[in-house]
Amino acid sequence: MSRIAYVNGRYVPHRLARVHVEDRGFQFADAVYEVIALRHGAFIDEDRHLARLTRSRGEVRLAAPMSDAALKLVIRETVRRNQVRDGIVYLQVTRGAAPRDFAFPLAAKPSLVVTARSQRIADPRLVERGIAVITLPDQRWKRPDIKSVALLPNVLAKQQAKEAAAYEAWQVDGDGNVTEGTSSNAWIVNDAGEVITRQADTGILNGVTRLGLFDIIARAGLRLVERPFSVAEALGAREALLTSATNGVLPVVRIDGQPVGEGRPGPLALAFASAYRAFMEGLE
Amino acid sequence: MSRIAYVNGRYVPHRLARVHVEDRGFQFADAVYEVIALRHGAFIDEDRHLARLTRSRGEVRLAAPMSDAALKLVIRETVRRNQVRDGIVYLQVTRGAAPRDFAFPLAAKPSLVVTARSQRIADPRLVERGIAVITLPDQRWKRPDIKSVALLPNVLAKQQAKEAAAYEAWQVDGDGNVTEGTSSNAWIVNDAGEVITRQADTGILNGVTRLGLFDIIARAGLRLVERPFSVAEALGAREALLTSATNGVLPVVRIDGQPVGEGRPGPLALAFASAYRAFMEGLE
Repeated sequence: MSRIAYVNGRYVPHRLARVHVEDRGFQFADAVYEVIALRHGAFIDEDRHLARLTRSRGEVRLAAPMSDAALKLVIRETVRRNQVRDGIVYLQVTRGAAPRDFAFPLAAKPSLVVTARSQRIADPRLVERGIAVITLPDQRWKRPDIKSVALLPNVLAKQQAKEAAAYEAWQVDGDGNVTEGTSSNAWIVNDAGEVITRQADTGILNGVTRLGLFDIIARAGLRLVERPFSVAEALGAREALLTSATNGVLPVVRIDGQPVGEGRPGPLALAFASAYRAFMEGLE
Repeated sequence: MSRIAYVNGRYVPHRLARVHVEDRGFQFADAVYEVIALRHGAFIDEDRHLARLTRSRGEVRLAAPMSDAALKLVIRETVRRNQVRDGIVYLQVTRGAAPRDFAFPLAAKPSLVVTARSQRIADPRLVERGIAVITLPDQRWKRPDIKSVALLPNVLAKQQAKEAAAYEAWQVDGDGNVTEGTSSNAWIVNDAGEVITRQADTGILNGVTRLGLFDIIARAGLRLVERPFSVAEALGAREALLTSATNGVLPVVRIDGQPVGEGRPGPLALAFASAYRAFMEGLE
């Protein structure tokens, strides 16, 4: 089956899915996006993703290409045409194509691109083994709470992680505290059993799976603390973990080559991953 | 005459100039660019622009799409097909199209897009009147010395300037010092007659016109000082100015609504603009 993409009003073969070279998403990173996972054909937290897309658009004053109701239809049609049951939908909204000029164009219509692909979601092998992270200075702009495509620093950090045989790079602010991963939120569990993740101010993206884990923590009666934590604190933590839309909850077993706890997935991280998987399965 | 663009090996009508939706320039701002001005058909500082493109590519480990000699031929052919004598050439190199993943793709070929358009270069009306700037916190990533397309913060700042009826936004770092404009370098002249602009470390883009003005300052026997300056110092300066490839040297006569000096273009700024114009005319 050949893949199909939605581009500005048309469903086209994926290989022919193109945008103009003066689309502001290409020349200015003047665009926001979302990735929504599907499990057994069900969308995981679609409404939270669409609400965040609306928030990102609002923060950069980017008009909606269509209503949320219409967008949901396009998402469903793209998923249907690509026969995705387990995988992801990718949506990108840009400020449209216009003669190149930094300021907003007066007449451009927002562009909308929607693609879908099958892929393994919340890979259980990653949960069983746990994953390694490295730490790097956070080089990003000051508004990573906006899910924009200005992702070059994330690309460079993720590549460094890959070359260090790590899954993710945890980015560290000027105070030595972890902000987040390049495409995931960062968490630790301390000796008091507190589950700690950075507060969602303008310094991190408020992950949808992060909020999903909040629900799980509350139901389990555990103590959630939203505050910054340092690399040293993470290295001395009982457990570490990360959350993302595509892989749910993953135990972090090494940071910069040092083991976290005993260097194996911790019991809470495993319990969270299980609970998140159960939540996904329950969406069917 | 209809415009022509160069896209990945082909000269195509501008309205049909497209890149794939999975081009990393569109999804990750994983791309660098240059803008080269032309005056009377002559390129202004082409070699410095191409050297900076090579540097930007190197900093983000992006392969050359072709040799500089071949690139120069493509630039010339694009200019010729668009019959540009006074205007700009825009070049963008991306890490190519590949299934979406943050880390570098293993197999993608770099994309190259070259466009050209006629436009007024170094508009003398802007020199005569001088221009206004506003100041804003610098929200960009930590490597603006790399000329990447991760320009969303620049877009937002330039739009704020436009809405304040200003030409440019001067971005201000955490210490209260001006870094640079969104697409220009910032300068002042103090009461001692020193010409001051921020040093080109990783905090600003090392403008090609900035270097051109270095040459002019040296020939005039004036004192150049490369150091940060604050907004307060700029407001109390004898003169202020900016440099960019498309408009050469422009006197800055207002900052945040306050006049600089007597609120008119200063004598050195006017002399620099003249000398830069003479330099451009001499390239014929």
